[in-house]
Amino acid sequence: MSPEEFRKNAHELVDWMADYLANPEKFPVKSQLQPGDLLNALPAHPPEKSEPDSQIFADFKDQIMPGISHWQHPMFMAYFPANSSYPSVLAEMLTATLGAQCMLWETSPAATELEQVVMTWLAEMTGLPDGFHGVIQDSASSSTLIALMCAREKATGFRFNEEGSNQVHPLVVYGSTQTHSSIEKAVKLAGIGRAGYRQIAVKPDFTLDPEALEAAIREDIRNRKIPCAVVATIGTTGTTAIDPVREIGEICRRHGVWLHVDAAYAGSALVLPEFRWMGDGLELADSLVFNPHKWMFTNFDCSAFFIKDTNHLVNVMSVLPEYLRTQSHGKVNNYSDWSIQLGRRFRALKLWWVIRSFGVDGIREKLRFHINLARLAERTIRNWSDSEILAPSHLNLICFRFRPAERHETDWNSFNEEILKRVNASGKLYLSHTRLNGIFTLRMVIGQTNVTEDNVNSALDTLMQVKNQINSEPPNRK
Amino acid sequence: MSPEEFRKNAHELVDWMADYLANPEKFPVKSQLQPGDLLNALPAHPPEKSEPDSQIFADFKDQIMPGISHWQHPMFMAYFPANSSYPSVLAEMLTATLGAQCMLWETSPAATELEQVVMTWLAEMTGLPDGFHGVIQDSASSSTLIALMCAREKATGFRFNEEGSNQVHPLVVYGSTQTHSSIEKAVKLAGIGRAGYRQIAVKPDFTLDPEALEAAIREDIRNRKIPCAVVATIGTTGTTAIDPVREIGEICRRHGVWLHVDAAYAGSALVLPEFRWMGDGLELADSLVFNPHKWMFTNFDCSAFFIKDTNHLVNVMSVLPEYLRTQSHGKVNNYSDWSIQLGRRFRALKLWWVIRSFGVDGIREKLRFHINLARLAERTIRNWSDSEILAPSHLNLICFRFRPAERHETDWNSFNEEILKRVNASGKLYLSHTRLNGIFTLRMVIGQTNVTEDNVNSALDTLMQVKNQINSEPPNRK
Repeated sequence: MSPEEFRKNAHELVDWMADYLANPEKFPVKSQLQPGDLLNALPAHPPEKSEPDSQIFADFKDQIMPGISHWQHPMFMAYFPANSSYPSVLAEMLTATLGAQCMLWETSPAATELEQVVMTWLAEMTGLPDGFHGVIQDSASSSTLIALMCAREKATGFRFNEEGSNQVHPLVVYGSTQTHSSIEKAVKLAGIGRAGYRQIAVKPDFTLDPEALEAAIREDIRNRKIPCAVVATIGTTGTTAIDPVREIGEICRRHGVWLHVDAAYAGSALVLPEFRWMGDGLELADSLVFNPHKWMFTNFDCSAFFIKDTNHLVNVMSVLPEYLRTQSHGKVNNYSDWSIQLGRRFRALKLWWVIRSFGVDGIREKLRFHINLARLAERTIRNWSDSEILAPSHLNLICFRFRPAERHETDWNSFNEEILKRVNASGKLYLSHTRLNGIFTLRMVIGQTNVTEDNVNSALDTLMQVKNQINSEPPNRK
Repeated sequence: MSPEEFRKNAHELVDWMADYLANPEKFPVKSQLQPGDLLNALPAHPPEKSEPDSQIFADFKDQIMPGISHWQHPMFMAYFPANSSYPSVLAEMLTATLGAQCMLWETSPAATELEQVVMTWLAEMTGLPDGFHGVIQDSASSSTLIALMCAREKATGFRFNEEGSNQVHPLVVYGSTQTHSSIEKAVKLAGIGRAGYRQIAVKPDFTLDPEALEAAIREDIRNRKIPCAVVATIGTTGTTAIDPVREIGEICRRHGVWLHVDAAYAGSALVLPEFRWMGDGLELADSLVFNPHKWMFTNFDCSAFFIKDTNHLVNVMSVLPEYLRTQSHGKVNNYSDWSIQLGRRFRALKLWWVIRSFGVDGIREKLRFHINLARLAERTIRNWSDSEILAPSHLNLICFRFRPAERHETDWNSFNEEILKRVNASGKLYLSHTRLNGIFTLRMVIGQTNVTEDNVNSALDTLMQVKNQINSEPPNRK
């Protein structure tokens, strides 16, 4: 491809991109592909000869696009969003063009220093207490794994890092029954072992019960185990429950335990003064993660990891071979020493572009709009005669189910499961689910960048139609 | 930003991108910024109000660009490249636009199935033996960490994952003195501990000495330690030495030890029949990594990780909470179960685009061209009266130094260090270094996508000029 062919092709792509982003609703929100459809359609062997870009782009549109679930579609109300925005896409175009590998300050000083600046901005925007230093990781999973590795080394005097973890007392990590699965995964991967993972009971509002935590820590100490870390969540995945960070933090301080706060989704809402209460007690935390790639309009991957003791972090994560020694060593941050990976994309650029393009006010406005739409949807669902809200909704996730009078209570789980299946198969709306106290629970998240009130009303209509349709069928058809 | 503003802005960016990629030589290859320059120039606080895109783009050009080291610049001959190409950039534009989070098959079936297809293509292109299954990771660091976690669990019956690693016998991992630092880092992070990392001696050609490996394993077994994994390297970072995979693999088989092959850089050259010998014995390996984002024209991040026992991989890496259960579970690959991260970008698209746009023949042609240029440069350096080649160069990395007759031998290290410093400060050429048997060694890699013979000659001229300049100065000026 010549420079001029690239220019022509890239302009052609931009028109497609602009059309797509202006109207993703042309596509079913959830891909309707069946397993193997694409696998069987694509050539089993790579092409020996170069193929023209026009053919590749045509195949992208014809073959790949039907297999995409559209995360930027306003009817995407599943999981937590991975939302993006125009300024973020622009910045990603430049990041890809520069193709800079930002492992060290010297391999692109602007990437390191811009990261330092935007992470300071984020800390100010979200009202983090003094003393936190930020770095961009790829995901909350990695951020949490890093936090637990730091906790592990602190609790054992670098035994896992150095002599090896055998012959240390067993470590224990605490979350709640609602804590995200990435914490359990991190406990596995960090070699602490799932036997050392306690999922503390929650209160009826699904927040971690501090008294149960205190009791569990005391019992583990009695049993000569080492309480190593507690993970408190601001905005659990199941229901966006807000754990009481201050009470948990005081327990951690009392027992010398690392406190990591997982605010992966809801952390963005800390930019709203009226939601700062969620962060009460954060000065007691040792580390925190939230993902601008979830609800701050910045393309995945962009996970904001904050930690107080950066010396400890670097001691846990780094090795320094000769070929990575640079003249500036010791004078600058080399963020590969703060991460699992040596290689790093220039991820700060998109966050900088987004914050400047929206302005902090613009971000606040969007988040408030989403939260208000969620209140509207929640009110409607609550007013339906045969529905039930299953968890408090502070933000923009609504957990609910139908309780159709026409069906026996023991059929309600399968009834709601059938609703989810048909809604998602319709291509009109994409929801996800969880299970709360054994109840199959529908999750509706209103956080897609460009979601409107019309979209929310349309989602509620779709739900009602699907429900009525199932209700009109004999139960054995389910 | 309205859809039409985005369209206009993105077209404007494309023209800048095309100009930049057609002529990155307008910029100094290594950023000339000093620590803190950008940090001090940028606002300490985030903007409250939205700023126009034209201003952000202008600041990108004025403030950020001077801080970029240009990895796509043809005079970038430092480290290993993170090279890119036109088709890769096009695909990245679409990936950013879709903004799909490809954690599960259902959250974008095309991403999963395309990944499966292109990884099969890669296995065929590089002549991997049967039985390997591929997945895209972010980096070789992560791939290696995952491989060592798999080895760790295999050696201990899932003790690290489940009961915790205390009270197991100490594990040992083997590399060579030339093995990449990411292996030492992985040993630290995996909780095996650096005391359990043996850096086996190398032969004069910097390849791992199998006899020394065998002896080390036997001694560890005698000392009731558990040999857990060996990392063999195809193309070490220091000198691109090619460890003897077959001999190492036979030792691993004999002792039941996991063999991981780190071919991060040189793996791309396995597409060349004349370099297939490097992979001799790969059927004895359990896992392998190579990075198309290094020398296969595909934007970082795109690390190809291959493993034989995918069931074991999934057992080691995964947890399955309710909210990630989907209807297709068990029928498809959910690649987040193959990775540390839950979230995943749609990384297969760029690899697909690159392979089709170049064709396998086109990739071979580029690699051969680079290798031939390296032979040319090596010949020239060898012919200089005061230079010395310090390691065999099979591929496109040349390790050398100057031995100026005008200086005492004890000054040669500082002399070459000064050359590196001045070359990199010139903005004309970017080299890196390593230390071989105590000798400060210049590393010159000729693998940038669009590097030409003129670029290589110009690099050699720059080296010669800088050397002559230093030689003309009194020694105490150094």
